[in-house]
Amino acid sequence: MINPDTSGGHLAVIGLGPGRADWMTPETRAILDRATDLVGYIPYLDRAGLGDGQRRHASDNREELDRARFALGLARDGSRVAMVSGGDPGVFAMAAAVFEAIEGDTAGHWSDVPVTVHPGITAAQALAARAGAPLGNDFCIMSLSDNLKPWDLIVRRLHLAAEGDFALALYNPISKARPWQLGAAFDILRTIKGGAIPVILGRDVGRDGETIRITDLGHVAAEDADMRTVIIVGASTTRVLNRPGRPAVAYTPRWHEGPVPGAPS
Amino acid sequence: MINPDTSGGHLAVIGLGPGRADWMTPETRAILDRATDLVGYIPYLDRAGLGDGQRRHASDNREELDRARFALGLARDGSRVAMVSGGDPGVFAMAAAVFEAIEGDTAGHWSDVPVTVHPGITAAQALAARAGAPLGNDFCIMSLSDNLKPWDLIVRRLHLAAEGDFALALYNPISKARPWQLGAAFDILRTIKGGAIPVILGRDVGRDGETIRITDLGHVAAEDADMRTVIIVGASTTRVLNRPGRPAVAYTPRWHEGPVPGAPS
Repeated sequence: MINPDTSGGHLAVIGLGPGRADWMTPETRAILDRATDLVGYIPYLDRAGLGDGQRRHASDNREELDRARFALGLARDGSRVAMVSGGDPGVFAMAAAVFEAIEGDTAGHWSDVPVTVHPGITAAQALAARAGAPLGNDFCIMSLSDNLKPWDLIVRRLHLAAEGDFALALYNPISKARPWQLGAAFDILRTIKGGAIPVILGRDVGRDGETIRITDLGHVAAEDADMRTVIIVGASTTRVLNRPGRPAVAYTPRWHEGPVPGAPS
Repeated sequence: MINPDTSGGHLAVIGLGPGRADWMTPETRAILDRATDLVGYIPYLDRAGLGDGQRRHASDNREELDRARFALGLARDGSRVAMVSGGDPGVFAMAAAVFEAIEGDTAGHWSDVPVTVHPGITAAQALAARAGAPLGNDFCIMSLSDNLKPWDLIVRRLHLAAEGDFALALYNPISKARPWQLGAAFDILRTIKGGAIPVILGRDVGRDGETIRITDLGHVAAEDADMRTVIIVGASTTRVLNRPGRPAVAYTPRWHEGPVPGAPS
């Protein structure tokens, strides 16, 4: 899988990383440069740019399965296709959608199409780096979107992640169509973890107008976030360092001391 | 924090990514090129290389706190220091250790030292990309090392992550000093999740001799892993796609169907 055959068609599923051009891996840059066709959501294609002779196939942010099928069809017909996500294509992005399309392809339209996936920096890592090291010990990453999974499952995962004292990064925290879920999630986490736990809100991380805000579960509200926000909720050991004249830092130490919360279930 | 003052001393905590040079971000490459001093574990410094006039301060893989203090001292004295980890410095690596050192510095030796952290690709992302998209839905990343946290806490987190049906990436799975913990972890996960759940073992991912193996919880054994292995254990929805003439792919779809396991606790 490292060196796909580039004489025929091929689908490379890539991620640009969150915002900054210098967070995009050289591997991803090289795939973009060699591609004949770029497929993806419009803002990501704008960031990727377009070289001479390259074709661009922009779509909106829904219909990931249709986008995946379209890209697979181009690759089957001989194109070198780059499917462009932001962040890491394997984290709440297009890689899973491409394999869903292949699995659903009972007619075998794309059975011969080589597909490779290439890692990228994901938003939680970028936010963690900007804030300090809040993911420096065991952590979970969850999407709060209940478009494709039941809200009951999200609630259950929030409970269990909180009871396990994991740090927790929340993607897709809120949207016009999902206005109340983030507040409900904060309520669950606050009840189990307590109000003193640090919360880090990152908006437009790595992009113009980036804002990083450190608060806590006792003070954070759903209104503090929007679609462009990623949130990290700390573990019981996560602390905030205030250094004179320097931005505050949130980090989770490598160690854990004190009693283990609860008994093994 | 984006553009640290480089006229004085500065500590940049960076990660090379897992193995491949083209998985290192351009930001990290630029920091390495501008540094006067590189500090880190020997194999990482070997990968980073050394430019003209750069000083290299190699250490072994223990004593992270001493290494952090040493790097902070160099930066205080005016050096542009790159603290070099593999992977992402914020994920079970040096960023947390640096902030531990600063917090423990009650004498204020390093109170004026600018410190920045810069994200890198971490091993779980590289393994996930090589295998397909097993982290395509909610997931956790845990270290199995009980050097700095109690084994009881690790057991509790394994239980809760399994009950929440998260996919789960396991770092530091086994070593000579920790020979039995991985088998115990597999037993816990197998009991809760069942033997059919896919397990992906990646050894030397992104390096010469890379091996990726897909098996399941019913068949995997501690002997299948060593210190250079990262492991991903799937969710209930994680599936293996076998395509004729292509490597098997493990992926977790974006959706979740069927009953939610258990009731919210």
